[in-house]
Amino acid sequence: MLSWVDFAVVSLIVQKFGGSSLADADSVKRVARRIVATKAEGHQVVVVVSAMGDTTDELLDLAEQVSPKPPARELDMLLTSGERISMALLAMAISDLGEDARSYTGSQAGLITDSAHGAARIIDVTPGRIAEALNEGAIPIVAGFQGVAQDTKDITTLGRGGSDTTAVALAAALEASVCEIYTDVDGVFSADPRVVPAARKLEFVTYEEMLELAAVGAKVLHLRCVEYARRFDLPIHVRSSFSQREGTYVLSPEAIETAIAEGRAMEQPIISGVAADVNDAKVTVVGVPDEPGRAAAIFRALADAGINVDMIVQNVSAASTGRTDVTFTCPQGSAAKATDALESGSGAIGFESLVIDDQIAKVSLVGAGMRSHPGVSATFFAALAEASINVEMISTSEIRISVVTRVDDAKRAVQALHTAFGLDADGEAVVYGGTGR
Amino acid sequence: MLSWVDFAVVSLIVQKFGGSSLADADSVKRVARRIVATKAEGHQVVVVVSAMGDTTDELLDLAEQVSPKPPARELDMLLTSGERISMALLAMAISDLGEDARSYTGSQAGLITDSAHGAARIIDVTPGRIAEALNEGAIPIVAGFQGVAQDTKDITTLGRGGSDTTAVALAAALEASVCEIYTDVDGVFSADPRVVPAARKLEFVTYEEMLELAAVGAKVLHLRCVEYARRFDLPIHVRSSFSQREGTYVLSPEAIETAIAEGRAMEQPIISGVAADVNDAKVTVVGVPDEPGRAAAIFRALADAGINVDMIVQNVSAASTGRTDVTFTCPQGSAAKATDALESGSGAIGFESLVIDDQIAKVSLVGAGMRSHPGVSATFFAALAEASINVEMISTSEIRISVVTRVDDAKRAVQALHTAFGLDADGEAVVYGGTGR
Repeated sequence: MLSWVDFAVVSLIVQKFGGSSLADADSVKRVARRIVATKAEGHQVVVVVSAMGDTTDELLDLAEQVSPKPPARELDMLLTSGERISMALLAMAISDLGEDARSYTGSQAGLITDSAHGAARIIDVTPGRIAEALNEGAIPIVAGFQGVAQDTKDITTLGRGGSDTTAVALAAALEASVCEIYTDVDGVFSADPRVVPAARKLEFVTYEEMLELAAVGAKVLHLRCVEYARRFDLPIHVRSSFSQREGTYVLSPEAIETAIAEGRAMEQPIISGVAADVNDAKVTVVGVPDEPGRAAAIFRALADAGINVDMIVQNVSAASTGRTDVTFTCPQGSAAKATDALESGSGAIGFESLVIDDQIAKVSLVGAGMRSHPGVSATFFAALAEASINVEMISTSEIRISVVTRVDDAKRAVQALHTAFGLDADGEAVVYGGTGR
Repeated sequence: MLSWVDFAVVSLIVQKFGGSSLADADSVKRVARRIVATKAEGHQVVVVVSAMGDTTDELLDLAEQVSPKPPARELDMLLTSGERISMALLAMAISDLGEDARSYTGSQAGLITDSAHGAARIIDVTPGRIAEALNEGAIPIVAGFQGVAQDTKDITTLGRGGSDTTAVALAAALEASVCEIYTDVDGVFSADPRVVPAARKLEFVTYEEMLELAAVGAKVLHLRCVEYARRFDLPIHVRSSFSQREGTYVLSPEAIETAIAEGRAMEQPIISGVAADVNDAKVTVVGVPDEPGRAAAIFRALADAGINVDMIVQNVSAASTGRTDVTFTCPQGSAAKATDALESGSGAIGFESLVIDDQIAKVSLVGAGMRSHPGVSATFFAALAEASINVEMISTSEIRISVVTRVDDAKRAVQALHTAFGLDADGEAVVYGGTGR
């Protein structure tokens, strides 16, 4: 198989290494050798790092010891010291191999954000110093996860998945040919290999599929980073820092089509993967009067409380009572807050009772090929029925089917679907070669 | 006794806390309470912090693990994460007490330096953001030890004693009424209390005396910070973060005169203190031809090798040989380098042999009153003679007498001098009230 990016010509590559790849001094040196090897192949390299291993957790623990509710500005100042340590050490290790490496904070690298401490959004990237370092033949090492607020000039952090987002944003601004995200797994798999031993590494997925996979529990890449890459049509290569194997490319459908047409890639399967998310809870609002405005009152109360509602189902009203049940899912950690919000708003909603159920799983099938293959739903539900798995809620997008099952059934559900769609590594993949869009 | 600074009017106080005062979460909270108490008295407070406890050593250890010779730029980037952690935690602890605290890096606080990584010099202080925070009623917490290079915009560190220097430089730029240096001792003592139990805390010393004391082994304040304070005539108050007692003020002679004249201070003793430094070695260059240019060749060779030479003695030439011995002291850590440099230059110097002796101590008496009291030398040497202590080398300044003795005699020498000059806490102090300058 040919590579997705033509490495025969000199190109600019952004490489991002996470905390698990930078656990201690030895891993820092291993990563340094990898970076130097990439440069030795003739490429320009920009590196983005997270904090080493458990540094962030240790800093959070310290913060908790001095203050139960630390100000967000100060928490950002504290946490950004983590990348400062890892990037300086990595620069030292690279220098030790004879290359000129220079570390830059988010602020120095031009990561300009809004001032929402703890969850800042990138509003501009001005990597003048990075470009300058590249021109001088150096390897710039940039602190991930952090930036500087445009208005206050305070240090900010980007929140979860922030370092991946830094890498993609820098890659886009520098017009890199690819952003390599190094992690502790080989790439994106058709299912969690701990659940489905026959799961296989995907050669590629579309941005859209990756977004759906990230949303339904695949932990490899964070939503924001994929969204950013899609916006700039920037190829992401998710791969392991512990092996030299190719990982999974995240690309636009057009790039995949072209690669298939040019024989650089195999045909694309209809289905990319199956995932299960066991972190949601199901809340049922029992006995809601079946009148206009009641559902709106429920979801207004939840929105005001900042609850992230995922799936929603409303039963058909019982004619005898004129009442119905409304069921939704939300993160388990928000369930108590959700019921509080509903109790407070119970006057306007007028329900009879609330039932929380955290013994559920959301099982999802994702694949861009679904759009042009109407038989997918039939295969999906047949597979679950054959495995005697009860479906409690259903939700679909153009390229995803999700169902809620008992948490104890989740593993079997994933396995059944993985097999039914021919995703098992020794099975026969269901492929298609058309555009399907 | 009245305080040196009039705390009845609102004033700006810079408080610097070192690593031993910020060892863990509990000490951070204790320091926070102290700062808030100062503000509650009606003052404006700017805080400067070092890294917590052993953080710097731990970071240096990490650096050593990844590279035997880390680039200075990257070492600075690494080490500056230490203050980032302590200042953010301290700001959190202060916020928890209900005050608005904001942490600032050296760069954000306007500490502009040259680009000599690891030992940068402050070339400008532009504390606009600090002044702004003060005007808004906040307590700014500034990272000590660090700045930003004017030309490269890279992060720099100021080297040893850097946080004290940051505090004094900020205090001068903000026209603070005093810079309080909090440490783990009660102030500057007339001798090391571990050597002389009767040593007493000095009420005040002049900048000049403090410089001499720092140069001869008193570890309380670093030379650079005292030099900076002298240049801007900024009062320093060295005190313990573990007690509420007044410490030692470092002031100009004029400020001390005024305080004495106004009855705000007791009269000043002739002698401030006695100190011993056991970290020097004595190198004797034996059999140097007694001709013009030979001594110059010796000290040129040493200077070229970067050796810091302290005391120098040349024996009277032996008429029979036309040769002489030249003896100098330098830090023990430099002695081997010194002999290497001399061996290399032996052709131009023409000596017979080299003798290194690291079993020496430098014992010093410091006091501004020495200038106007010619009897000091006589008392000094009489005290050593009575204690049967042999003097190997002598060097004097206007306000200091230093001698080299056997290292085993150092403790007795310090005790004898401390008693002879009436410095013992239960003894009678030798005082004077004149200007003496």
